[in-house]
Amino acid sequence: MVYLVGSGPGDPELLTVKAKRLLSEADVVLHDKLPGPEIIGQIPEERREDVGKRAGGEWTPQEYTNHRMVELAREGKTVVRLKGGDPFVFGRGGEEMEHLAESGVPFEVVPGITSAIAGAGVAGIPVTHRDHTSSVSFVTGHEDPTKEESAVDWEALAATGGTLVVLMGVGKLPDYAAALRDAGMDGETPVALVERATWPEMRVATGTLDTIVDVRDAEGIEPPAITVIGDVAATRDRVVEFLRNRTGELPAGTPADPEVREG
Amino acid sequence: MVYLVGSGPGDPELLTVKAKRLLSEADVVLHDKLPGPEIIGQIPEERREDVGKRAGGEWTPQEYTNHRMVELAREGKTVVRLKGGDPFVFGRGGEEMEHLAESGVPFEVVPGITSAIAGAGVAGIPVTHRDHTSSVSFVTGHEDPTKEESAVDWEALAATGGTLVVLMGVGKLPDYAAALRDAGMDGETPVALVERATWPEMRVATGTLDTIVDVRDAEGIEPPAITVIGDVAATRDRVVEFLRNRTGELPAGTPADPEVREG
Repeated sequence: MVYLVGSGPGDPELLTVKAKRLLSEADVVLHDKLPGPEIIGQIPEERREDVGKRAGGEWTPQEYTNHRMVELAREGKTVVRLKGGDPFVFGRGGEEMEHLAESGVPFEVVPGITSAIAGAGVAGIPVTHRDHTSSVSFVTGHEDPTKEESAVDWEALAATGGTLVVLMGVGKLPDYAAALRDAGMDGETPVALVERATWPEMRVATGTLDTIVDVRDAEGIEPPAITVIGDVAATRDRVVEFLRNRTGELPAGTPADPEVREG
Repeated sequence: MVYLVGSGPGDPELLTVKAKRLLSEADVVLHDKLPGPEIIGQIPEERREDVGKRAGGEWTPQEYTNHRMVELAREGKTVVRLKGGDPFVFGRGGEEMEHLAESGVPFEVVPGITSAIAGAGVAGIPVTHRDHTSSVSFVTGHEDPTKEESAVDWEALAATGGTLVVLMGVGKLPDYAAALRDAGMDGETPVALVERATWPEMRVATGTLDTIVDVRDAEGIEPPAITVIGDVAATRDRVVEFLRNRTGELPAGTPADPEVREG
């Protein structure tokens, strides 16, 4: 039996009750780096395997993870495949699920909290808002490099009029900011970057479609981060004075404070 | 202090560790029906208030909830405002957060798992998939009735080429299925309906854009349910034989089995 489990955005308290139980019950937890150090550190070393790296330090192909899940399940082990966020939001969990089914291995899906929603939320940004938007779209900024051209239709996304959240989109921010402006999106549209959402060292930086690349560079925002584009991104400035999220109140650039962490 | 807390899709084990802790610590939990009977039933009656109904049985205006949160916080109470799914996915949590900030009440946001992702996932449907889609859009099928015209641009959503998930969209399914076909979406596009996702009586029904209204009627699918539109919806049929989700393996139309529930 294999459990495809989402770890949430990184704060161990944002694990689900079920994920926490399964992590304590599993014979083996297969993970990469994405669940984050706090959650991985809670799993005893002898019960976890990092499938994100080979022994030599290279990235492991997806095929290795697929193979290892099936191998362990056939040995009769209870396996947790732990994935950052939700298993099915840009996490290749769909491919892993199909591989399990093709291999005849029973599995269960345990959803997790995606940083695409939670990262905005803890920063004081609602991804939907009755006054501002009737839809929200999630898109990856880090496409499969084997694809010949961008599969993301930025023009159509801009035309939805809804909030856009880009995952893994720090590096390509200049490209899609330009694409959205070319598609007619207002340069004054609010944009927020949330780095390491819900981690102790979380940081938030805000600007507009026109300014956000400069903001990114000035603040030194680095992956992993989400980009929130739309009127809702301006909500943060209206509420942040009273926002007491463990990490969300840190102004951009403030080093993590372990005391805040424990409070 | 007010905590805006997401309850997840309904399965109590899909509460976050933090939500569970706050529910046990809060002086008062303000809730409506959306978190579902299993989760609400875990909160002692003397510590919860249903803000979804007035004494007379009518729906409470949003203004009452806003007022009550502030009133209790000013009495020095630790308040949990418990919302179904995630507080900021079509839940008016953004308005509640802004009201708290305007009233000078400190608050914290505790994200929850949205049924838009989890409902698909436990049914064996990944909302994104490297081979099929580079984006996923969430939209409400139940718009603010005071809006003069539909704020949802179905044509733009169809043009994204990504997965679409409609929340609260059982009733208006014929309208938006037609709108999407008019926008050029292939009538053979797979569609899945997931009713009461992760609840004991969860049901799943699948079809295509052309057939899904008939499927809905034949199966008697009722709210609350999500509609998943896109190639990924066909994944379920390829994996369901090995899907052991507590509830996800029930074929559409099968009554809930309490034994499965307990397993």
